[in-house]
Amino acid sequence: MQQSKQRIVIIGGVAAGMKTACRLRRLDPDAQITVIDRSRNISYGACPLPYYIEGLYDDITEVRKTPTGVLRDENFFARVKGFETLTRTEALEIKRTEKKVLIRNLDSGEESELDYDKLVMATGNEPTIPPLPGMDLPGVLPLKTMEQAQEIDRLAETGKNAVIIGAGLIGLEVAEALTERGLNVTIIEMKDQVMSTALDFSIAAMVHHELSRHKVNLRLAEPLQRIEGEEHVTRVVTTKGVYPADLVLVAVGVQPAVKLAKDAGLKLGETGAIEVNAYMQSSDPDIYAAGDCAECTDLLTNQKVYVPLGSTANKHGRVVANNIAGHEEQFPGILGSLAVKVFDLNVARTGMSSRDAQLIGLKPESIVVSAPDFAHLYPGNNPIVIKLIAERSSRKVLGAQVAGPGVVDKRVDVIATAITLGATVDQLAQLDLCYAPPFSNAMDALHQTANAMRNKLDGLAESLSAVAVKEMLDNSEEFIFLDVRSPAEQEVVSIEGSTLMPLGALRQKLTELPVDTLIVPFCKMSLRGYEAQLILQQAGFRNVRYMEGGILGWPYELKK
Amino acid sequence: MQQSKQRIVIIGGVAAGMKTACRLRRLDPDAQITVIDRSRNISYGACPLPYYIEGLYDDITEVRKTPTGVLRDENFFARVKGFETLTRTEALEIKRTEKKVLIRNLDSGEESELDYDKLVMATGNEPTIPPLPGMDLPGVLPLKTMEQAQEIDRLAETGKNAVIIGAGLIGLEVAEALTERGLNVTIIEMKDQVMSTALDFSIAAMVHHELSRHKVNLRLAEPLQRIEGEEHVTRVVTTKGVYPADLVLVAVGVQPAVKLAKDAGLKLGETGAIEVNAYMQSSDPDIYAAGDCAECTDLLTNQKVYVPLGSTANKHGRVVANNIAGHEEQFPGILGSLAVKVFDLNVARTGMSSRDAQLIGLKPESIVVSAPDFAHLYPGNNPIVIKLIAERSSRKVLGAQVAGPGVVDKRVDVIATAITLGATVDQLAQLDLCYAPPFSNAMDALHQTANAMRNKLDGLAESLSAVAVKEMLDNSEEFIFLDVRSPAEQEVVSIEGSTLMPLGALRQKLTELPVDTLIVPFCKMSLRGYEAQLILQQAGFRNVRYMEGGILGWPYELKK
Repeated sequence: MQQSKQRIVIIGGVAAGMKTACRLRRLDPDAQITVIDRSRNISYGACPLPYYIEGLYDDITEVRKTPTGVLRDENFFARVKGFETLTRTEALEIKRTEKKVLIRNLDSGEESELDYDKLVMATGNEPTIPPLPGMDLPGVLPLKTMEQAQEIDRLAETGKNAVIIGAGLIGLEVAEALTERGLNVTIIEMKDQVMSTALDFSIAAMVHHELSRHKVNLRLAEPLQRIEGEEHVTRVVTTKGVYPADLVLVAVGVQPAVKLAKDAGLKLGETGAIEVNAYMQSSDPDIYAAGDCAECTDLLTNQKVYVPLGSTANKHGRVVANNIAGHEEQFPGILGSLAVKVFDLNVARTGMSSRDAQLIGLKPESIVVSAPDFAHLYPGNNPIVIKLIAERSSRKVLGAQVAGPGVVDKRVDVIATAITLGATVDQLAQLDLCYAPPFSNAMDALHQTANAMRNKLDGLAESLSAVAVKEMLDNSEEFIFLDVRSPAEQEVVSIEGSTLMPLGALRQKLTELPVDTLIVPFCKMSLRGYEAQLILQQAGFRNVRYMEGGILGWPYELKK
Repeated sequence: MQQSKQRIVIIGGVAAGMKTACRLRRLDPDAQITVIDRSRNISYGACPLPYYIEGLYDDITEVRKTPTGVLRDENFFARVKGFETLTRTEALEIKRTEKKVLIRNLDSGEESELDYDKLVMATGNEPTIPPLPGMDLPGVLPLKTMEQAQEIDRLAETGKNAVIIGAGLIGLEVAEALTERGLNVTIIEMKDQVMSTALDFSIAAMVHHELSRHKVNLRLAEPLQRIEGEEHVTRVVTTKGVYPADLVLVAVGVQPAVKLAKDAGLKLGETGAIEVNAYMQSSDPDIYAAGDCAECTDLLTNQKVYVPLGSTANKHGRVVANNIAGHEEQFPGILGSLAVKVFDLNVARTGMSSRDAQLIGLKPESIVVSAPDFAHLYPGNNPIVIKLIAERSSRKVLGAQVAGPGVVDKRVDVIATAITLGATVDQLAQLDLCYAPPFSNAMDALHQTANAMRNKLDGLAESLSAVAVKEMLDNSEEFIFLDVRSPAEQEVVSIEGSTLMPLGALRQKLTELPVDTLIVPFCKMSLRGYEAQLILQQAGFRNVRYMEGGILGWPYELKK
């Protein structure tokens, strides 16, 4: 089954490359495996770097250690894993016809060639640097390597003002880290929301709120013009303002590192990443690609996408190793599932956003539900807001975005599993999830959301999103915005423009309401708002739509 | 579609009954809905009662309140939900031919009749009281009602010694509660493990360990003989000992409350609960059953089972209401998913145990993997131990049990979703779950477990469970029990009978090991143990099997 004494060269010694090498050695004791990497710092986890800056651990080499504290260096891979790693070594050229890689030792400058039977491209990504003035100033840098994390850490030591270009995952994580370090942080984002490819506006707006709660100056819809300074960066100039800066993080995104592949004539996909088939083979069947330099297939659309994540890189590595060792395996694809913590707000998402679904011509329906993450009687529970997206006709689940101080990742992982296996919202509603007060509710937030979606799809509930209601308020449209909570609740926090009429009194007070005007009831979460809608409709009011997500899902300022 | 002015009588005003009534009112504004219940305390959550005893909240009426603090009493249901509730009212007889229920007011003694078009049995469960002497002594009681929780709370105030009969969910939760209250707690359990219908021994043994860590006296395989006392309970006598007791909780299980149904000639299933079809209709199509008095279908075996849980009761209620209102819906079934917190140990499970699978003639494979619940660099991470069960030939996931101080419910919910939708372990391994250091690992514990299972199914890994190894140690069988961790790790904690040989030195020390003797390598979790197995096998050692779960999954005493 497996060829003996295969010569395998792997270019890139971080997540995908090292996973490939380790798995391959386990499958094939005889293979001659060589990993090469430009850096001395191989096999590091990039994801924990923002937490180094935040000061959650002191020794940066921790990101290169196993959970039991062993440093993953060349020696470790040789002795424990049983393969060779050439660090400070650059791949200069792939000679596909001769099946050789020309390499250079970056310290000695010495060049040599490595023969391969199978080659693995695990060259990762490169931070995108916008072609604007000042990007080369000292104090301006992206965050990808351990060295960059250390540099940001040093700059944070003495700096007062930090500017972050880009409100994606890294930008947001470092915004938290630098704020916790005591710096004034400004985020400059071109789009009108954070995480614009991952989140719809209403969930992104919860992040906006959280950033502002922590005094981060979030500048949306504000394109960068240039970065200024002499010896060192001093300020950042946008179309709308000038911001002092002792430190600038460039975090507008990453692109696949494909120069080597391109020069070798490997086919790149429309995404710019290396095109691969389901076996992770490039256009040259003896060359595989894995991790952040390779394309993925979207499980829902079957389209090629570029979503570079460590979780995917590890899975890629295993698939590539299996295929090289003769254990044929396909990589099915991804849903773009991800999570991020922004201060006290947890955010996770999977599958399509409403925007994604509309863009490809689907007819999506969405619902927003707020609920506690576990029993309200059990100490420590916190609210979460779930946005669920489904296709109207097939009722299949398309995606979800969940945010709140409570447990969000569990719900997103369940939904990702459901989407992968083709579940409908009806199946989601009937899932037998585990329940006990410290973990969930008898009807979990997820069940509530799926049921709210079913009501909407079945025409049993009519609702408006918070975004739609806000627009109506801003445009001074005529409608009754009915707060059906108790007076005590309203005193604590309320929404400007709303009128109080507690649910318990509603059946008695129907005559006070006009029959023809649109009525939009809401409560703390969504339940009483929905109940109010039904009471009103059953009493003959025809134009009633409850506001989804209630106060907890309201992503704008509240009256306190 | 829906019949107007239907008369609906619902017997039982807790989870299933109230859910049915509320949903039905939302679907059918005209239906005449009447809920009757023997107690004044309707619509209470029984699951949080142990936490009342523990003192996590002070006011017992909290279990009857909505998350926003409104008491769910007769007045609430009338004003807010719009239906009538008759409390302190007992259903004496169902007259099926006349479609009437004979009821009695328990305060006035007055009898009357209620007409129904559809009747809903939501009579719940009754705690099982073993037919042994002393069960009627003051101070001996089950925990089902608010009054019983208050009585236990009072007894705990002055009592010193508590004995709990039965180590199921309620027994374990109250053991924690009473220990936290400062009582000496003894648990008497007939079986040789806790939660015997839910967990396999190795995971149950982790609970044993946790109970002993908190000084709970767990008496396994020890049948109860009698309870003794004069005015009040004083001691509990088993086949093996005598235990002083100021308070005895009888928690050996519950049975469906079906007297009324049985007297009315409704068919009971083999489980003893009311037989229902997928629409939750009993043998009389005008009578539905929901919640703890009704049978369920096991999603995996398609067999009828009795697993009374609040999560299921709520789903039942919605399905019954939908069907009565003409929105036809089936209840698909359950997996027996549940969770429980026992002191600092979280435990959750779903689907089949290894034992369940063997009992019905399947050929299950199982694997145990230990891993941190999220990135080891992110503060607050904790280990979890996952036991995954799959069918060998189809590779379909059958069940899982997860325990540890870390996050267990997320993994079980994902697996429950995967089982429901028919996933294989290969699909489980490729799930695109959301990742960031505060939430998971790039390869989540779940992926690691699924991959370990694939290695085992594919013959790439050979392993032994901790239980099997313990048996070999106890029987003094000849094998080398090889601890491949570092000397520093071994100094902190180790397993009696093991020999140290760190993984990093293994390739150099192969000559020190005998080729023919069984070698069982292990580490802290499982990874290095597996690596060691491969190194040894690749070096020609034929009889090597790593121990699953490592030190973290070792459910017995450790050497410290």
